[in-house]
Amino acid sequence: MSDRWTWHGGGLTAARAHYGDGDWIDLSTGINPHPWAGVDALTFDWQRLPDESGLRDLEVAAAAHFGAEPAYVCAVPGSEIGLRLTGQLLGESGLWAEPAYRTHGDVLRDARPLPFDRIDAADGRSLILANPNNPDGRLIDRAAMRDLLARRGEGWLLIDEAFADAHSECSLVGEVGDRRLIVFRSFGKFFGLAGVRLGFVIGPRAIVDRLRALIGAWPLSAAAVAIGAAAYRDRDWIDRTGPLLRNDAAALDRLLCQRGYVPQGACPLFRLIETKDARDLFERLAMAKILTRPFAEHPRWLRIGLPGGADELARLDAALGGV
Amino acid sequence: MSDRWTWHGGGLTAARAHYGDGDWIDLSTGINPHPWAGVDALTFDWQRLPDESGLRDLEVAAAAHFGAEPAYVCAVPGSEIGLRLTGQLLGESGLWAEPAYRTHGDVLRDARPLPFDRIDAADGRSLILANPNNPDGRLIDRAAMRDLLARRGEGWLLIDEAFADAHSECSLVGEVGDRRLIVFRSFGKFFGLAGVRLGFVIGPRAIVDRLRALIGAWPLSAAAVAIGAAAYRDRDWIDRTGPLLRNDAAALDRLLCQRGYVPQGACPLFRLIETKDARDLFERLAMAKILTRPFAEHPRWLRIGLPGGADELARLDAALGGV
Repeated sequence: MSDRWTWHGGGLTAARAHYGDGDWIDLSTGINPHPWAGVDALTFDWQRLPDESGLRDLEVAAAAHFGAEPAYVCAVPGSEIGLRLTGQLLGESGLWAEPAYRTHGDVLRDARPLPFDRIDAADGRSLILANPNNPDGRLIDRAAMRDLLARRGEGWLLIDEAFADAHSECSLVGEVGDRRLIVFRSFGKFFGLAGVRLGFVIGPRAIVDRLRALIGAWPLSAAAVAIGAAAYRDRDWIDRTGPLLRNDAAALDRLLCQRGYVPQGACPLFRLIETKDARDLFERLAMAKILTRPFAEHPRWLRIGLPGGADELARLDAALGGV
Repeated sequence: MSDRWTWHGGGLTAARAHYGDGDWIDLSTGINPHPWAGVDALTFDWQRLPDESGLRDLEVAAAAHFGAEPAYVCAVPGSEIGLRLTGQLLGESGLWAEPAYRTHGDVLRDARPLPFDRIDAADGRSLILANPNNPDGRLIDRAAMRDLLARRGEGWLLIDEAFADAHSECSLVGEVGDRRLIVFRSFGKFFGLAGVRLGFVIGPRAIVDRLRALIGAWPLSAAAVAIGAAAYRDRDWIDRTGPLLRNDAAALDRLLCQRGYVPQGACPLFRLIETKDARDLFERLAMAKILTRPFAEHPRWLRIGLPGGADELARLDAALGGV
C-alpha cells in the first residue's frame, strides 16, 4: 500500500490512477457530505482585493457561532495553515497528544508524542491536542477540558477544534483571553466545503496581532469571505445539521456493527474501526471504488467518513460484506 | 487625510463611508481593469479538499508562463503572504530598496531602507526590491538585473515581480536555481482577479520545500487552483493583454500630460504623478468618487491605477480639471 493513502485523506486523484477510474465514494476525510447549500446563490467579486471590513465582518459572524470574543478571532486560509503558522510564531517546544491529526507533530518545536490517556502528565510543557480527536473521535467534555487548562503551568495549551461544530458544548473557545490557550476551528468540515480554505485561530490579542502581521492584509479569497460570513449566520442550517449528522452517523454505526466491527468515536463526521488487517480491508473497499483512510503506524485502524446517503451506505455495506 | 488611504490601496468601503456612497472608480490599486473573462465559465468543487495533483498542475502552468523550472515554483495564497512567509523562513536581516511596496519593509529582519539609486551599495547584505517597482513604476532591464545578481555576495536577492507580467523580458525567474535568489509573482494584478488570492514564490528547492512545509497540504482554494491553471494556459488572452494595457496606459499618459502632470513609470497598470499638494488632489478626486493612492511619507505623490475605459478616463479628466 502506497504512503499516499496513509499521509492525509482526500487523495482521490491518486486513487483513480492506482485503482482505476469510476464512480468513487470518498470516505477518506471527515467532511460533511451534505454541504451548506447557500453557496450556489452567492456571487463573488473576484476582481477586487477583499476589503478589510469584509474580513472583520466574517470574523464577527464566526465568533458568534463559536461563542468567542471577536477580538480573539483571526481568520486564516484553512485551519491547516493556521496550525502551522501559529506553531512557527510560538517557537515553543512541546508535546502532541497521540493518536493525532498528522500535522500536530509539526506544530510545536522538537515535538514529542504523549499518549492521549496521559495528557495530565504534560505538566508545564506546551501541548497540542484535538477535541473531538482525529482519527479516533474521542470527545472530552468541557469540565474535563477546563480542569486540564486550570492545572497547566507555563506551557501553551493548543486545542484543535476542527471537528467541534457538532459538539459546541465541549468547546473551550469561551475561555480564550489573556492566557496561554489557543483554539483552532475549521470551516470546511462541518459546512462540507473544504475547497473554500477557511479556518480560524482563536487566541490572546498578542497572538492574533502577530498572526495578522504574518499573513498580511488579504489572507482570504473573496469566496472564503462571502461564503463564510453567510454560512456562519445561517442559524437554521446550523441547527438542523447537528442532528442530521448524528442521525447519519447512527446509521453508519448500525451498518458497521452488523458487519462485525465496533465503531469508535463521538464525532459524527467519521468513525474509526479496528480490524485484524485494515490494509486488506482498505484494498477491498478501494477495489469497490470506496476510498477510506488507513494509518501506517496503526495497521489495524481504518477511518471511515460519513456516507452521503442511502446509496452510499448500501455500497459500503456491500463492499464490507464481499470477500 | 486618514492613514487609511496611505497604508494600502483598495480601501473602497472606507472611502464610501468617508466620502459618501455612489458610483466609485477605484484607481487606488494596480489591478488590470479588464479581467481574464474565462472565470465565468468555470465551476468549482467547493466540497473536496483541493487535490495535490491539481496544485502541481497549476504550478506547471504558471512556471511555463513565467519561464521558470516548475521544481522551483511554489503556489501560495497571494504574493503578499508569500513575501511575509519567505521572510520568516529566511530570518535574514537586510535592506529594502526605497521607494517600495509597504510590505517590503516587513520581509527581512531589522530591515533598513536603501535608496533605489544605490542598490549597488547593498554589497553582501540581503536585499528586496520590486521590478517593475511600485509605486514609481521604475523598470530595470534584465542585463542590469543580472549584473546586480552577479555582483552580490552572500546575501539573498529577493525580487518582487508582482507587476512583471507585461514585462517578461525583464524577469529574472529564469536565473532561479541553486543560488540565493527568490522571485515573487502575483496572479491577481495582470489577470485582474485580485480576489482569487494566488501568488508564487520561485526559489531554490530547499526554500520551496520549507515553504510547502510551512503552508501545509492545502494552501489554495479550489477556485484559485482552477482559475489559475486555466488562465495561465490562455496564451491568446495573455498575448493580447500586454499590448492592450500599454495602449490604455498611453491614453492615461496623454490625459495626465494634458492636465499638466508628468506621469512616471513603465508598468502599464499604474502611473505615479508628483504635484505640489497630492493630498488636495486626492481629496478632489475622492469628492468626484475616484479613489487614488496617496503616500504619507511622500506628500507630493499620487499613484493612479489604469482606468477601465473611455467613461472612466473622461471622469478622471473632468475631476482633474475641476477646481
